[in-house]
Amino acid sequence: MTEHVHVLGIAGSLRQKSYNKAALRAAAEMLPEGMTLDIYDIAPIPLFNADVEAQGDPEPVRDFKARLAAANALLIATPEYNYSMPGVLKNALDWASRPPATTALGEKPLAIIGASGGPWGTARAQLALRQSAVFMNMHPMNKPPLQIPHAEAKFNADLKLTDEITRQHLHAVLVALAAWARRLNRI
Amino acid sequence: MTEHVHVLGIAGSLRQKSYNKAALRAAAEMLPEGMTLDIYDIAPIPLFNADVEAQGDPEPVRDFKARLAAANALLIATPEYNYSMPGVLKNALDWASRPPATTALGEKPLAIIGASGGPWGTARAQLALRQSAVFMNMHPMNKPPLQIPHAEAKFNADLKLTDEITRQHLHAVLVALAAWARRLNRI
Amino acid sequence: MTEHVHVLGIAGSLRQKSYNKAALRAAAEMLPEGMTLDIYDIAPIPLFNADVEAQGDPEPVRDFKARLAAANALLIATPEYNYSMPGVLKNALDWASRPPATTALGEKPLAIIGASGGPWGTARAQLALRQSAVFMNMHPMNKPPLQIPHAEAKFNADLKLTDEITRQHLHAVLVALAAWARRLNRI
Amino acid sequence: MTEHVHVLGIAGSLRQKSYNKAALRAAAEMLPEGMTLDIYDIAPIPLFNADVEAQGDPEPVRDFKARLAAANALLIATPEYNYSMPGVLKNALDWASRPPATTALGEKPLAIIGASGGPWGTARAQLALRQSAVFMNMHPMNKPPLQIPHAEAKFNADLKLTDEITRQHLHAVLVALAAWARRLNRI
Repeated sequence: MTEHVHVLGIAGSLRQKSYNKAALRAAAEMLPEGMTLDIYDIAPIPLFNADVEAQGDPEPVRDFKARLAAANALLIATPEYNYSMPGVLKNALDWASRPPATTALGEKPLAIIGASGGPWGTARAQLALRQSAVFMNMHPMNKPPLQIPHAEAKFNADLKLTDEITRQHLHAVLVALAAWARRLNRI
Repeated sequence: MTEHVHVLGIAGSLRQKSYNKAALRAAAEMLPEGMTLDIYDIAPIPLFNADVEAQGDPEPVRDFKARLAAANALLIATPEYNYSMPGVLKNALDWASRPPATTALGEKPLAIIGASGGPWGTARAQLALRQSAVFMNMHPMNKPPLQIPHAEAKFNADLKLTDEITRQHLHAVLVALAAWARRLNRI
Repeated sequence: MTEHVHVLGIAGSLRQKSYNKAALRAAAEMLPEGMTLDIYDIAPIPLFNADVEAQGDPEPVRDFKARLAAANALLIATPEYNYSMPGVLKNALDWASRPPATTALGEKPLAIIGASGGPWGTARAQLALRQSAVFMNMHPMNKPPLQIPHAEAKFNADLKLTDEITRQHLHAVLVALAAWARRLNRI
Repeated sequence: MTEHVHVLGIAGSLRQKSYNKAALRAAAEMLPEGMTLDIYDIAPIPLFNADVEAQGDPEPVRDFKARLAAANALLIATPEYNYSMPGVLKNALDWASRPPATTALGEKPLAIIGASGGPWGTARAQLALRQSAVFMNMHPMNKPPLQIPHAEAKFNADLKLTDEITRQHLHAVLVALAAWARRLNRI
């Protein structure tokens, strides 16, 4: 019950003012007891190329794998591009999913959330990530789901999450992730 | 009936000895009359970042969009990574799908094939690409489908497609793509 | 340009007061010129069983196939059950997809819409139907998409579609379906 | 570690000589210690209709929900129809997913397998079921996956599973399901 849950937070967007990055920062400020959260920037991870990999993982990939391995849960905040997750997010996970360090992703409890401008949500991107998670042997949490559409109305100009309902939902996701991680990690 | 069909061929893998690149080269050598095929290398296309895009498309992206716009059909050969298309392929399409040049992908007739080593096929990657194609407003051909599992037995050491059955299937895909493109492009 | 487009409308829900049935009725009252729409009730179609089929299609299945074959476009209005289309809708399509009368579904232009009570849309159900449409060789239209969430606020007590914006979107779907059907059917 | 795992086995096909039913019978004869398996026939479950449900669940539905509730793991063997699970399987799950008895499916550990005649597998049907499982709050096991293509060569004329490799894979699924159920149920 009291196992510490160390979460690595990953945003699927590279831009500075990403709402998904902002959602991770908001999460970091409302963690339930017994949970820590580091936010990881995937921008330095290069395009996957098996010829490059054969020479040894580039340094950013080695770093990413090490940070994943050190976490006992993941929180991925993804926008939706073209009815799926962004290529940049999939690319980072493609690197991380490769042997020999399969344990970088394998068996990881995972919560998926997604923020988006405008009325469109991220339902399809979240499902696309779940599909890849099967092969990567991650364990995405089912409930509660969290989408943050109309993000422009829920974050302020400083990208602070100011919408109270969304804050409560995000907190509920974190509490549920802690329970899910503890349930799964007690193998 | 006699409209010329100019196809841009895109492989979803960056490695030199990619079977999917080899499948595109095989296609280029068995084109039906009235079809041409250029193979495009997506390796130079950087990771998508909206902050970068706001400064103007990088040169490789401009080039990719121009080549897409000049084609009147696409042939995408994709491996399957983690039950989906590779991040590098999705990333290239993410760039191409962005305004103002939405016409780079919009309304394009598309054939999807996929080669893979070992017994596993690329069914899931192909469906993942179809899902993105809906939002990008491309028109993937339904039939005939083509998967090339056990690629190591169907291409020789020089990566020539030597398996006769697979050659016939690939040719049938090209013939069907020509018909599909002509049917759709006659708006 | 002037080919008549005869649409068969199918709702994915069997209940009397289905918003999806109501959406089809609304469509029938705002058809663009050159389009007719019949609404088909799939309630009599039994559970698919290959042993039953081997004895010959049950009468409701024969009727459904004949009506599909007589249409040159389909309009399917589907709710979302469990992140997919309802089993009853899939079941009806399973029957219709079977030989010998593969032409019942094959090559059919298709528009997919979906109404739902509450804030949740039908994005996942619509994509699930698109996935099946690939194998059934139907041609779902890409744009414009139409979801009708909060249906309880858009239909009145008599299940008339009273929301003006939604009416305009529905009309746009019908106009686009007419164009899509004419484009595809001119083989 | 020693919790008894009682599995309800459900086949997605109604026909008598279904390979998926046969796969469940094969499983019942090779259970690891501490596991029992009952095979449930979904044929009596009617088409879902919310008007009917409002009058009270039909008897076959009540029975199905009760049997689901009594199991602490599920094994679903599904064919692939039209790139998805059969409508009849989805329909049975649609009933079971409804309140008030949400516990009938909620939190259930689940293993998915699929047999099919011919070279085509059931990858897409299995993923479609996984997608619905998210909303139903079931927990599908990730590994090992099991597809049984060319079922006609792996079952004998009496529909006994005679292929030794497939028998080993099926046994491995059952062992993994027992571990997965024990891991998840120890909340």
